[in-house]
Amino acid sequence: MKVKTLKDLFIHSLSDVYSAEKQLVKALPKMASASTNENLRTIFEGHLEETIGQVGRIDQLVEACGIKLLRIKCAAMEGLVEEAQELVGEVDKGAVLDAGLIGAAQKVEHYEIATYGTLAALAKKLGEKTAMKLLLETLEEEKNADRKLTALADEEVTEEAAAAK
Amino acid sequence: MKVKTLKDLFIHSLSDVYSAEKQLVKALPKMASASTNENLRTIFEGHLEETIGQVGRIDQLVEACGIKLLRIKCAAMEGLVEEAQELVGEVDKGAVLDAGLIGAAQKVEHYEIATYGTLAALAKKLGEKTAMKLLLETLEEEKNADRKLTALADEEVTEEAAAAK
Repeated sequence: MKVKTLKDLFIHSLSDVYSAEKQLVKALPKMASASTNENLRTIFEGHLEETIGQVGRIDQLVEACGIKLLRIKCAAMEGLVEEAQELVGEVDKGAVLDAGLIGAAQKVEHYEIATYGTLAALAKKLGEKTAMKLLLETLEEEKNADRKLTALADEEVTEEAAAAK
Repeated sequence: MKVKTLKDLFIHSLSDVYSAEKQLVKALPKMASASTNENLRTIFEGHLEETIGQVGRIDQLVEACGIKLLRIKCAAMEGLVEEAQELVGEVDKGAVLDAGLIGAAQKVEHYEIATYGTLAALAKKLGEKTAMKLLLETLEEEKNADRKLTALADEEVTEEAAAAK
């Protein structure tokens, strides 16, 4: 598909994040099972449910806008997931790995915050109000997930990791 | 290198972003020359200078902390740069590509915001005050670059792109 209009760009970017979310649905259970801190595992499990819901929200949006997604693979999310997997391979289970996983997850969240921010702005410009509303709901969830991870890192995990020998 | 302590994780993460910044130094001139909007080109060129400075700031930090970086390649930045390059290949030069490049650049900025946020928190926990100060300086630059891109998208580029046929 040749991207010519803002609507094409919207569809392209939406297809990209659809691929990203589906990759994340596969990665989050692995991140949860690699976590030692119980609160971190709970965040990952909760965010898995949320991510499945976000995929459904994109399906809903596609229906509402009467568009068709492209079959593309999000290269950035591939890299982000690869980074998290490398960490799991290089660090033994424990507080240091937990701190690393929080960092990796926050990179993922920020990737999605940037993406949904752009998508919501494009939807607004295209006059797609339902799409914009759905995208802003997901954006809020991503920001919230990022905040939870920051709080857990500050309050527990880096403290535990600093004590690790 | 096996990552065992929080300091190891700090060095690992710092090495990763060092690779990311160096990849970005190569990618930004291409993004600038693919841009039609003059203000966007100016932002990319300005951020190239800033990014070169950020690489130097990491060198300075390495010196101050007496650490040695690992030779690793940041997979996430590879994916992010690939995404920007794909856009340049798929979209003709003009306002729609400019809007796409802004989106791609904001993903990069958010990747870096998450990374430097984590690194500054780790430096603080490790008692590395000079490192923390340097990392927070870069974090501010990344946030500022992201804000400039949002403003340009809102004020000019998506408007022009919406008018593109």
